[in-house]
Amino acid sequence: MRMYTMKNLKLVLKENREQTVVNVAGIDIGTGLTVIAGPCSVESEEQTIETAMAVKAAGADMLRGGAFKPRTSPYSFQGLGINGLKILKKARKETGLPVVTEVIDPRDVSWVAEFAGILQIGTRNMQNFSLLKRVGRSGRPILLKRGMYSTLEEWLNCAEYILSEGNPDIILCERGIRTFETYTRNTLDLSAVPALKELTHLPVIIDPTHSTGRLSLIAPMSLAAVAAGTHGILIEVHRRPQDALCDADQALTPDMFKGLMTKLRSLSKFMQKGQYNES
Amino acid sequence: MRMYTMKNLKLVLKENREQTVVNVAGIDIGTGLTVIAGPCSVESEEQTIETAMAVKAAGADMLRGGAFKPRTSPYSFQGLGINGLKILKKARKETGLPVVTEVIDPRDVSWVAEFAGILQIGTRNMQNFSLLKRVGRSGRPILLKRGMYSTLEEWLNCAEYILSEGNPDIILCERGIRTFETYTRNTLDLSAVPALKELTHLPVIIDPTHSTGRLSLIAPMSLAAVAAGTHGILIEVHRRPQDALCDADQALTPDMFKGLMTKLRSLSKFMQKGQYNES
Amino acid sequence: MRMYTMKNLKLVLKENREQTVVNVAGIDIGTGLTVIAGPCSVESEEQTIETAMAVKAAGADMLRGGAFKPRTSPYSFQGLGINGLKILKKARKETGLPVVTEVIDPRDVSWVAEFAGILQIGTRNMQNFSLLKRVGRSGRPILLKRGMYSTLEEWLNCAEYILSEGNPDIILCERGIRTFETYTRNTLDLSAVPALKELTHLPVIIDPTHSTGRLSLIAPMSLAAVAAGTHGILIEVHRRPQDALCDADQALTPDMFKGLMTKLRSLSKFMQKGQYNES
Amino acid sequence: MRMYTMKNLKLVLKENREQTVVNVAGIDIGTGLTVIAGPCSVESEEQTIETAMAVKAAGADMLRGGAFKPRTSPYSFQGLGINGLKILKKARKETGLPVVTEVIDPRDVSWVAEFAGILQIGTRNMQNFSLLKRVGRSGRPILLKRGMYSTLEEWLNCAEYILSEGNPDIILCERGIRTFETYTRNTLDLSAVPALKELTHLPVIIDPTHSTGRLSLIAPMSLAAVAAGTHGILIEVHRRPQDALCDADQALTPDMFKGLMTKLRSLSKFMQKGQYNES
Repeated sequence: MRMYTMKNLKLVLKENREQTVVNVAGIDIGTGLTVIAGPCSVESEEQTIETAMAVKAAGADMLRGGAFKPRTSPYSFQGLGINGLKILKKARKETGLPVVTEVIDPRDVSWVAEFAGILQIGTRNMQNFSLLKRVGRSGRPILLKRGMYSTLEEWLNCAEYILSEGNPDIILCERGIRTFETYTRNTLDLSAVPALKELTHLPVIIDPTHSTGRLSLIAPMSLAAVAAGTHGILIEVHRRPQDALCDADQALTPDMFKGLMTKLRSLSKFMQKGQYNES
Repeated sequence: MRMYTMKNLKLVLKENREQTVVNVAGIDIGTGLTVIAGPCSVESEEQTIETAMAVKAAGADMLRGGAFKPRTSPYSFQGLGINGLKILKKARKETGLPVVTEVIDPRDVSWVAEFAGILQIGTRNMQNFSLLKRVGRSGRPILLKRGMYSTLEEWLNCAEYILSEGNPDIILCERGIRTFETYTRNTLDLSAVPALKELTHLPVIIDPTHSTGRLSLIAPMSLAAVAAGTHGILIEVHRRPQDALCDADQALTPDMFKGLMTKLRSLSKFMQKGQYNES
Repeated sequence: MRMYTMKNLKLVLKENREQTVVNVAGIDIGTGLTVIAGPCSVESEEQTIETAMAVKAAGADMLRGGAFKPRTSPYSFQGLGINGLKILKKARKETGLPVVTEVIDPRDVSWVAEFAGILQIGTRNMQNFSLLKRVGRSGRPILLKRGMYSTLEEWLNCAEYILSEGNPDIILCERGIRTFETYTRNTLDLSAVPALKELTHLPVIIDPTHSTGRLSLIAPMSLAAVAAGTHGILIEVHRRPQDALCDADQALTPDMFKGLMTKLRSLSKFMQKGQYNES
Repeated sequence: MRMYTMKNLKLVLKENREQTVVNVAGIDIGTGLTVIAGPCSVESEEQTIETAMAVKAAGADMLRGGAFKPRTSPYSFQGLGINGLKILKKARKETGLPVVTEVIDPRDVSWVAEFAGILQIGTRNMQNFSLLKRVGRSGRPILLKRGMYSTLEEWLNCAEYILSEGNPDIILCERGIRTFETYTRNTLDLSAVPALKELTHLPVIIDPTHSTGRLSLIAPMSLAAVAAGTHGILIEVHRRPQDALCDADQALTPDMFKGLMTKLRSLSKFMQKGQYNES
């Protein structure tokens, strides 16, 4: 009953199309390795800018940070909203890093887009079709996370929703699927990277933070993703993880991130040499 | 890592609270057995009213019907929207049955609420927190479907989102979870019925149609749900299933529904006799 | 990739075959409702016989009890082995109840069969093909539990292994599948009952104990199973559950079991009246 | 209910123990990268020896090949049994490659061990405790595949079964877990590699063939496993995959394997340089 027909997919399939390369303020996603790093949520100007400068110094290409946080409980920190976006704007000015930030309500798309280089659709909203249609008309690139319960085909259909509204700039982000295993927060389905690269022309990146939910697994899985051919990595970094308002136990410190970046860049370079080109 | 703490749940837990009974135009949900029946989607006035009259004649308590359809593909029938709601209004007038209909966008809540006795939040929107907050201020009872990837605790947190906005009238609807099994569309987690009845004061109903996705399983699983203590059943009926624009192969005909209703009512009566009261 | 082809199934499919009724010492499984009750494991003669007499008095049809226990850890109680079987033999003599007991090693089949009315293949051994082939030549009826990770088709193939060795007496037992949900030990896939009844001629029973793993859910799910058309129930009862060497927190007391039996028999009778016959 | 307690694990945990390095006829597993390659099943002498020579030539360290095949259907090819083992022995003689072969029945362990350098326990037998105890006394290293439905803790408990019988030589092999996703045969849980490396002193290898079930995903996932720190790779190669009696569509040709080996060795060398040492 869950067979892969791909029958409704028109714009998202690879077929003879060229690889999509999303360009945001001079940064490309879809060629080489793009690293997007930053805190789970924007908590304060100081925390955000300090973290942004640290990830910039370590060689990140873009800054991530949430102003609207979809949280399991209504009593958890929900993000700073507009004030969070203003802080991100400052962080962009300070560092020059384009900003990736989540939008969770179709009513907010137009003004959130003013602050964002890339709009993120989170795992819980992957099939929020109203939101997908709206961001399809936002004029901004979209980072579309995989629903934690979604097949590749369902995910591609969600990209098709955005494409069919006229927005060609979509980045697919594998962030772990829900399985019976509880040692990790989710199970990172890394095979989605080469699978999607044969199915679609859209760039594919991975999120080692939310998928594993364990600090010690982030570095090896990031390296593994590079070897599997990912176009990018979206990773949580916090200047002082222990103080973070969310995901405190899975954010890298700036130092850890710096060490990882050295490895990632070096591995990426190694993989791009002739014999490792899997395409 | 997925442990049940229930720690953030304040209003939704049973504790010493009385069973919530949601009353819609004289129909109670949360005591006895309430049956909500109708087509997957409103396709035309004739189709809707004919089906509504048939389910009314068979003893249904409420009418279901979708005007906004969250569909996997952007190219599938997306529902009639406002025109669908107008048809539902007519069907309500003709039959007297209160209407349950889905809302998928926070921008639509206020006006969709004008047409609906109960607003449904679908499985893909269970953690659409913007929508949950908005329907929490809609003044209408909410039928909250379980996310197909959601634990009971996550689901209860979503009800907590609605409750914390001041809306006490929530009905939980188990509609199947996603598992490795593909014989059925989803796996109906019927144990959620007694589990939720011990955890929360909110009514719990089940959807045998979307959970099983197989016509032959709908009757036995509906009967099983009654024996398990469900407060209600939400079921798809179509005057001519083979012509339905969605879920064509899993809607009951009016005749099938009539036969099932006789059994359901009789079993419900039997279960409510002294020794079958599981509370 | 997990499509239902049923293509290799020859003997197990319903097609035009008559419903298989397994008869063990005068007790039928495959018509009406057969209840098999007893402790998780045989711990002592006193415990076993006391429990056996209690379930007999409450109306059970057969006795269950494990002498070989497949335990997650090598350091957990592994069962009394041959001594456990001797105790079961005494319990059979005392109560007249046929015994269902698990076999886990092909080397043990011939002599364990001497003590057993029915040989049980546990969930972890469903695809232990050596064992399946061996019990297919044991001359005893086989209670084949569903692998906690198995599709219906894979399960039916395992029955086919036994049938193809010449053993026609197989009872299928749904005991819960593994999902992401952790509130229950496993997720009872009750829809397997009507699904299997349309696919195969073999009797189908359910195990509410191992599937739910929660005392409070056993009664409602047992009643639900009867309403769904199960041919039987396999349930854990212990004279003093708190002292049990395994599954201490999910065994019914004799009193609880007695109360449940009254309900089960009454519901079963009700369901067998004309209009509730789902066949 | 599925919490990680690790409480019964005594011998398998890392703690202060040294990394186990399993040595088979001069080949180490547990340091560097060990590649085990060969056909799914032994079909004929010619096919096996030709394939063995090809994988040897490409740089494989050991030969895999099944003489006993656990197959979903009783009517599928079940392996050549003793004749298959004799062929493997010849292949070992011809190539010098130690042989990894599956054993599925405790009655066969002693004589299968005569032919095998390493005994494999397959995914369906991971919790076949009789078999585990028996191979714990076999005097041979054991390649223990993860149950497709098993948590890391359950898997480690199975290794504990073997260790507690006195056999210290165990290799853990991740081969994919069962999830809702059907694009791949299973979902390769690559995070198990670094997770196990922090939990246990046993070597950890991966099987990219059975986990992905797709030819095009084998190379990228093998490379990813190396980057994640795997101690080895177990991979299917067939001289003419299209003629294979099982897994015909997921075996590499000798040419494909040769190309992959070059990349694997080169990447492995790269990863072992200072900064990529994740320990």
